[in-house]
Amino acid sequence: MPKMRCKRCRQPAVIEVRRHNAAFCRDCFLHYVRQQVTRAIVKHRMLAPSDRVLVAVSGGKDSLALWDLLLELGYQADGLYMSLGIGAYSQRSKALCEGFADAHGAKLMVHDLAAEQGYTIPEAAGGGGRSSCGVCGLSKRYVFNRAALEGGYDVVATGHNLDDEAAVLFANTMRWDTATMARQFPVLEATHRGLVKKVKPLYRLAERETAAYCVLKGIDYVVEECPLVVGNTQLRHKETLNRMEEASPGSKHNFLFGFIDRAAELLRSADAAELAECSRCGMVTQAPEDADEAPVCAFCRSRGRLLGAKARERALPVVEVSPR
Amino acid sequence: MPKMRCKRCRQPAVIEVRRHNAAFCRDCFLHYVRQQVTRAIVKHRMLAPSDRVLVAVSGGKDSLALWDLLLELGYQADGLYMSLGIGAYSQRSKALCEGFADAHGAKLMVHDLAAEQGYTIPEAAGGGGRSSCGVCGLSKRYVFNRAALEGGYDVVATGHNLDDEAAVLFANTMRWDTATMARQFPVLEATHRGLVKKVKPLYRLAERETAAYCVLKGIDYVVEECPLVVGNTQLRHKETLNRMEEASPGSKHNFLFGFIDRAAELLRSADAAELAECSRCGMVTQAPEDADEAPVCAFCRSRGRLLGAKARERALPVVEVSPR
Repeated sequence: MPKMRCKRCRQPAVIEVRRHNAAFCRDCFLHYVRQQVTRAIVKHRMLAPSDRVLVAVSGGKDSLALWDLLLELGYQADGLYMSLGIGAYSQRSKALCEGFADAHGAKLMVHDLAAEQGYTIPEAAGGGGRSSCGVCGLSKRYVFNRAALEGGYDVVATGHNLDDEAAVLFANTMRWDTATMARQFPVLEATHRGLVKKVKPLYRLAERETAAYCVLKGIDYVVEECPLVVGNTQLRHKETLNRMEEASPGSKHNFLFGFIDRAAELLRSADAAELAECSRCGMVTQAPEDADEAPVCAFCRSRGRLLGAKARERALPVVEVSPR
Repeated sequence: MPKMRCKRCRQPAVIEVRRHNAAFCRDCFLHYVRQQVTRAIVKHRMLAPSDRVLVAVSGGKDSLALWDLLLELGYQADGLYMSLGIGAYSQRSKALCEGFADAHGAKLMVHDLAAEQGYTIPEAAGGGGRSSCGVCGLSKRYVFNRAALEGGYDVVATGHNLDDEAAVLFANTMRWDTATMARQFPVLEATHRGLVKKVKPLYRLAERETAAYCVLKGIDYVVEECPLVVGNTQLRHKETLNRMEEASPGSKHNFLFGFIDRAAELLRSADAAELAECSRCGMVTQAPEDADEAPVCAFCRSRGRLLGAKARERALPVVEVSPR
């Protein structure tokens, strides 16, 4: 095979991007990454120069690449790390976020799920109801939105990349969960004063591109997958999409971008959820169908189930109340 | 493994239907097939008792099962076989359709693409423009609609099964071809006097179920795939869906039925094509964007290209017309 050359400057290339029929040297690849992120921000009006941005960081390649890119592009971007209590994996992830913040003179906030909410993600596994991945996603969305509101941030930015977004869209499309599909978009506006705007500036970049970005920029990130994720459905969908991408480069891109450009708008009428305030925590939730019912948000319901299950496991004496 | 028993009558089963978590003996399976077809017909108001139905038969399991079922359910169903000129494959397919018609005292019409339109499907392969599968589909839709109109039929019924429909929907969804998706439905009403209503009464039955139906009913069908279909994209999509179905039975069903029940309606606004009459053949086509342009339907355009290519291959002397 002839040595590949950079599409922009004809120097020897270090990475190939097949779906764009391109290869890049180090500097031109970093330029390409910044360009894709800038394009995402501009096309979907994600960020204004004066916005205070809260970056949800996990210690992985995507969120640290995102934080790095936003700082480099001149945004006021603080990080928020949430400790999920997944043993050594969580400790190492947190240390990497702290290391990044120190090295870049950036501000990192740390929240701790066990200390603040009374449970860890491993405790959510096998507790009936949602899967541990389901509880983790729900908890993160809740804590990040709430922390952004309380900290006066304008936007929460997350590191979802092209592979993540394509896999989630694929899962929802395979069962035509149109209400959820209608809410999957690179930007979600704050449609209620209890919601902070959410943006995904990396949606145009593939997983291996954010990894390459970190490697080329010398950003240290946690390489292992979360140990709880093994066998989860999203991984299976990613494999399906990877096979399709292999057979026909650009498949993922066409699937995700086609949705964003042509289908999302058509499905939006499926998302007609009315909003209300949770009667327990005051945060935003869907209004119950029965107007007499007190609204309780999905996070409070899930947390209640988990804390209840923990109490029963500790074999607290159960006080039976005899019916009158 | 314990011997499976029929879900309805507890006799030994001959076939398992995993997505319905069921197994059936011969008679109960035939009952199940009739029930699914009846449900399709009723749910989507496909057929009225007095309708004259034209069944598009290819000699394969799906279309012969469909013809058999419609006759058994008491519909006035004639068959139309179109000879595509694919050598021995076409000859054998035609003989099987004639055999079925004879055995059932049913009426079969035969059209011949080469005799009537001047080309065969193998000649369409590699001729630029559409793939041979593309030309075949286009030719069949055109000829069946036209024959139904000219024969005074109320409906054209085709043998598309659950696997076919899921694979086509999957292909269109992977690139969010929303206009085509908006037209994929178990029933297409005649929205113009040049169009005959189209119905797909087998969309609730899997490929292996229509095959099992033929075997159990002693219907002789052409087992080989069309020799031109090798490596086509739909086959690749079917493999992808089969792997998903294997990992999670019901995936195909959920994908297709979720679309029909929840998404199709939302996408329908994407199909705003205005109709016109083709200036060459008089059949219905999309109106050109430029109102001064004479409408030419996709069939006439494709046929023109193919006949032109054939003429050039025969090295007919080309008469140059010098510009005035």
